[in-house]
Amino acid sequence: MVPAWTRGEERAELLAGGPVLRPQRLAVTALGNSPGTAAAGLDAEVVEVRTLEEVAALGERARGKLVFFNHAMATGGPGYGDTATLRTRGPAAASRAGAAGALVRSLATASLRDPHTGMTYWPPGTAHVPAAAISVEDAELLHRLLARGPVRVRLTLGCGFATPAMVESANVLAEVRGRERPGEVVVIGAHLDSWDLGTGAIDDGAGVVMVMEALRQLSLQPVAPRRTVRAVLFMNEENGLEGGLGYAKRHAAELPRHVAALEADGGAGRPLGFSVTAGEGGLALVKRLAGPLAPLEASGVQPNGGGSDIEPLRAAGVPVLGLWQESSRYFDWHHSAADTFDKVVPAELAASTAAMTVMAWQLAEAVETLPRVPPPAPAPAKR
Amino acid sequence: MVPAWTRGEERAELLAGGPVLRPQRLAVTALGNSPGTAAAGLDAEVVEVRTLEEVAALGERARGKLVFFNHAMATGGPGYGDTATLRTRGPAAASRAGAAGALVRSLATASLRDPHTGMTYWPPGTAHVPAAAISVEDAELLHRLLARGPVRVRLTLGCGFATPAMVESANVLAEVRGRERPGEVVVIGAHLDSWDLGTGAIDDGAGVVMVMEALRQLSLQPVAPRRTVRAVLFMNEENGLEGGLGYAKRHAAELPRHVAALEADGGAGRPLGFSVTAGEGGLALVKRLAGPLAPLEASGVQPNGGGSDIEPLRAAGVPVLGLWQESSRYFDWHHSAADTFDKVVPAELAASTAAMTVMAWQLAEAVETLPRVPPPAPAPAKR
Repeated sequence: MVPAWTRGEERAELLAGGPVLRPQRLAVTALGNSPGTAAAGLDAEVVEVRTLEEVAALGERARGKLVFFNHAMATGGPGYGDTATLRTRGPAAASRAGAAGALVRSLATASLRDPHTGMTYWPPGTAHVPAAAISVEDAELLHRLLARGPVRVRLTLGCGFATPAMVESANVLAEVRGRERPGEVVVIGAHLDSWDLGTGAIDDGAGVVMVMEALRQLSLQPVAPRRTVRAVLFMNEENGLEGGLGYAKRHAAELPRHVAALEADGGAGRPLGFSVTAGEGGLALVKRLAGPLAPLEASGVQPNGGGSDIEPLRAAGVPVLGLWQESSRYFDWHHSAADTFDKVVPAELAASTAAMTVMAWQLAEAVETLPRVPPPAPAPAKR
Repeated sequence: MVPAWTRGEERAELLAGGPVLRPQRLAVTALGNSPGTAAAGLDAEVVEVRTLEEVAALGERARGKLVFFNHAMATGGPGYGDTATLRTRGPAAASRAGAAGALVRSLATASLRDPHTGMTYWPPGTAHVPAAAISVEDAELLHRLLARGPVRVRLTLGCGFATPAMVESANVLAEVRGRERPGEVVVIGAHLDSWDLGTGAIDDGAGVVMVMEALRQLSLQPVAPRRTVRAVLFMNEENGLEGGLGYAKRHAAELPRHVAALEADGGAGRPLGFSVTAGEGGLALVKRLAGPLAPLEASGVQPNGGGSDIEPLRAAGVPVLGLWQESSRYFDWHHSAADTFDKVVPAELAASTAAMTVMAWQLAEAVETLPRVPPPAPAPAKR
């Protein structure tokens, strides 16, 4: 079951008053799971913060306001990992502080006034309030204006959930059965869903193509690999991870014999190697398995790998790998209308497909398997 | 009198059928002076051309279609000057061929799916048909799809002219009177109007700021320059040039004593020098006058200069100059929502302002004046 959330109309404008000499349109887009506003829009004063902690510190100054989450991602500041929490958790934090809504600076490394959407998460019991991403340019404008006086914005969103709010959907699975140990499984995965503004070519159409083509290549070999390679195209990575969670739940009995899972969710850029989370010695084994990819300059290995969809497998001890790709422009396009097919360079996508294919074969064929991920150390007893 | 054209709602989608598996949104924006479509949109097959000549060659194949003007500006092809005619003249050419409307690939050197607007020109007697710019990405998509089969698009535009279609507007003039020859005038100019998608910070807010600040600096000098320096902020450069034409008409009697006109309409980038159109020897004199700007690396001189607003002055023989600026990113932003203040680098704008100020002083102070632009050679007699 996945959320049935749709976008609808969306617009915002600076209202005249204070430092704003005349009304001006702001480039906004609704964030995933945001409720809509009244048809006439939500008209509120803007208050700027840079961290979740600052929201809590606002106290009464948050009440009835539009909390504006600003950050430095597009200006040489922290990266996606450091700032995405402002988008996923910020709107709910604003709501808990009594705010009427939230505006989040787009998580973007380049901008031509195009806002970037993404998921918001609302802990149970939190009142949903309208939440929108604003373009980097408009975030900088708000920041400049707020230094000069109070600023009001009218935000109009037509987004919201259908009735019922959750609808049935599905992962897509296919496999090449192992010739010796068909019960041992290597998962290769990517996600089928994408944000609606663009076509999802890089997030994660490219990954889906890699997985489909890798499985096809394996199916064309004269012999199958020792173990089963299972392609899983996960649904709902972007807005709840129901596909990844559902796979882990439905296949729970098989997971002790899932020897590895490899996800591609980093765009269509050329391959650099693999990021790996496994037990002691896992990185060294992946490094050896990646050896044939050295001529492609794709045999790099780094720790702390995996992917959103296979995180539930890692939690069950399955060694997980992420395809490590060149991604310097990835966040120029990510979750925006600019995530379109023209951003895919065919030779780079082909090279990443080759890297995934080779690693899938190696993981399924090698005599050794990766050491499993150890369970987390028990939390220290509270005093 | 200037056109009272407004934008309204705008959207387009690929319709399912032929190579299009399911409907898909296209990023479009109405071109200036386009009429709107019916509320339900204009639903038509797309036919692609690359030149105005190809439109005429379509014959009956243009009838009822959306003529799609594609070009290579964003892919290392020709520049704005070579392709802008497709936007200004293409829609009318399509109309004359019987087309129902026109789609023009954005004139852009970078794109994040953002369309760039601009003027369309309709010769008297031409039926106006709806005309929109589409993003570079969507132009490439249309091109790929059209190679595979017929493609239909639904274009919905709410734009159009008010009643009356022309409204009163004005240039803004100010001057520092010359101390010796007040009747001799150096015009420094830029344009006040801008396209509505962005805020017009680079086209031509930057030029307006330069002109205002140059005049202010001149007004602060202990002595006025020998001749009058007149700042003219022209209206309607973008959509008919009524300000430039109106200034030349209203001041026709003065034009023989207009010794030069200098326009800034190339963004906010750093100055490189001046482009010049004058009589024989004019470039050499400008080169000498620009000498004090050498430490700023702004003393370059190139032929064929001027600006849209001062073109009517050139036609009357007035020597014209354009401020020559670094502009490598200018067409990333030009006529799009991304033309916003954050694109202005203060030190670069300050340097260009200095270049304009110095050249205004020099033109107004120098004993010599630039040789006037000779009238065009008479056309050869027809046989």
